Amino acid sequence: MSTVDTILQKEPLLVIKIGGNIIDHPAKLQQFLQDFAAIKAKKILVHGGGKIATQLAKDLGVAQEMVDGRRITDAETLKIVTMVYAGLINKGVVAQLQANGNNAMGFCGADANLIQAHKRLPNASNSIDYGFVGDVDHVNTAAIEPLLEQGISIVIAPITHDGAGQLLNTNADTIAQSVATALVNQYQVSLLYCFEKAGVLLDANDDNTVIASINPDYYTTLKSQQLIFAGMIPKLDNAFTAINNGVSKVIIGKAESIQDLVAGIAGTTLKTNTITHEQ
Amino acid sequence: MSTVDTILQKEPLLVIKIGGNIIDHPAKLQQFLQDFAAIKAKKILVHGGGKIATQLAKDLGVAQEMVDGRRITDAETLKIVTMVYAGLINKGVVAQLQANGNNAMGFCGADANLIQAHKRLPNASNSIDYGFVGDVDHVNTAAIEPLLEQGISIVIAPITHDGAGQLLNTNADTIAQSVATALVNQYQVSLLYCFEKAGVLLDANDDNTVIASINPDYYTTLKSQQLIFAGMIPKLDNAFTAINNGVSKVIIGKAESIQDLVAGIAGTTLKTNTITHEQ
Repeated sequence: MSTVDTILQKEPLLVIKIGGNIIDHPAKLQQFLQDFAAIKAKKILVHGGGKIATQLAKDLGVAQEMVDGRRITDAETLKIVTMVYAGLINKGVVAQLQANGNNAMGFCGADANLIQAHKRLPNASNSIDYGFVGDVDHVNTAAIEPLLEQGISIVIAPITHDGAGQLLNTNADTIAQSVATALVNQYQVSLLYCFEKAGVLLDANDDNTVIASINPDYYTTLKSQQLIFAGMIPKLDNAFTAINNGVSKVIIGKAESIQDLVAGIAGTTLKTNTITHEQ
Repeated sequence: MSTVDTILQKEPLLVIKIGGNIIDHPAKLQQFLQDFAAIKAKKILVHGGGKIATQLAKDLGVAQEMVDGRRITDAETLKIVTMVYAGLINKGVVAQLQANGNNAMGFCGADANLIQAHKRLPNASNSIDYGFVGDVDHVNTAAIEPLLEQGISIVIAPITHDGAGQLLNTNADTIAQSVATALVNQYQVSLLYCFEKAGVLLDANDDNTVIASINPDYYTTLKSQQLIFAGMIPKLDNAFTAINNGVSKVIIGKAESIQDLVAGIAGTTLKTNTITHEQ
């Protein structure tokens, strides 16, 4: 049996990541969750934190420091992000999905040992001490597979643990990729990254310049022609890592267009290079 | 087959409730979770909120009002208790249990629709508006039975939902009783209420006056002789409700003595009236 045939026999699974541009707007979040609930396929939602944690820290007088968009997480900040991400946002999302008829279960990485991570330490190549920030070591898919099989949607907050009792703040994009990659043996996984743009744009300021589809070969060509907005490159490199690790496709676009993204008529689809049929 | 025989065939399940006197003391909580993790039986931990939510509300300038020990829960307070109970405390407990080798999964009532409740409204007999406080309607045991069967401990935060997207603050004692009662057909359930006293005391100020065992007949006798401290009566009435609904026994005592409580050598055990063997 060829690889293609094996893939075709697997059931589809969507891993969808949403960020602050949706979480920070109750009306947009409500609409998104209604659309998400209506998707029939098995699905996992990974949410970021948005500005609520930053605002709570401000209200509590806990100074926040960001380096390259990453939050330096001291002990007080860890409490704040655990409360906001794993409590307020995660449970609010789950309750709204229930209201939309979509049975859902919230997780942080400690729950059923779903995501184990290690504390990121300063090293020779990066001397920044990020504090209680975790890099993912392992996703324990056994914790969620039985729930997915029952049709329960999984909602993941970007908090992991180290197995020794320490919770860790972890980048939601990375969690989405790690979870998607961990499930490729069981499912035909599509990973949807929702952000503030309509997709990968040839002109970063023009939502009408969405590139419909990119495979690694085309990505290399576009980069060599300097036709990809520089800020997109880390995100795309990350997305292609998922492709290279067995995720069937990655779609990048707006959460407001989730139904069209799932239908393949919006956003940018990153695919593997076309496989020549072997027969 | 007699009722006794049927009960004997069921596997034991412990439902343990801990309150603020443990949650508010990191060292006591750590010791308790170590002891809890070491219990071999299937088990569920229901935790209250302690003083952390009250302190956070104070830090944020959100005025708190308590009526008969119950928190009036306005919209801002609901956010606070959701963050503290379902986020900070619940995930901290789960991470510590993982560190002690006990796979655990945190829930609020919205997760997998575990506990559905309705908002408590002022009525003719009680005109107090408690705000976003929920009274339990239904415990969906299917959400946790497969996890219990895998040996995963369930950790429940006292936040429920109404099925229409609203989270609700719910009394942890009531949740423990509701969850215990809902599982009596599947398990031989023991419910352990941990509080600040060594058990039901004949003299409320003397931990050496623990009544070892009470059944409903003896409870009636003690009440008629005014030998039960008045403040214990609501707690005991609540506990006997569990007994009357099929919970095999209720044990009341100190979390610090959890191993002795489980072994039946500490605390007060509430039992059904002695069943005369039918053979």
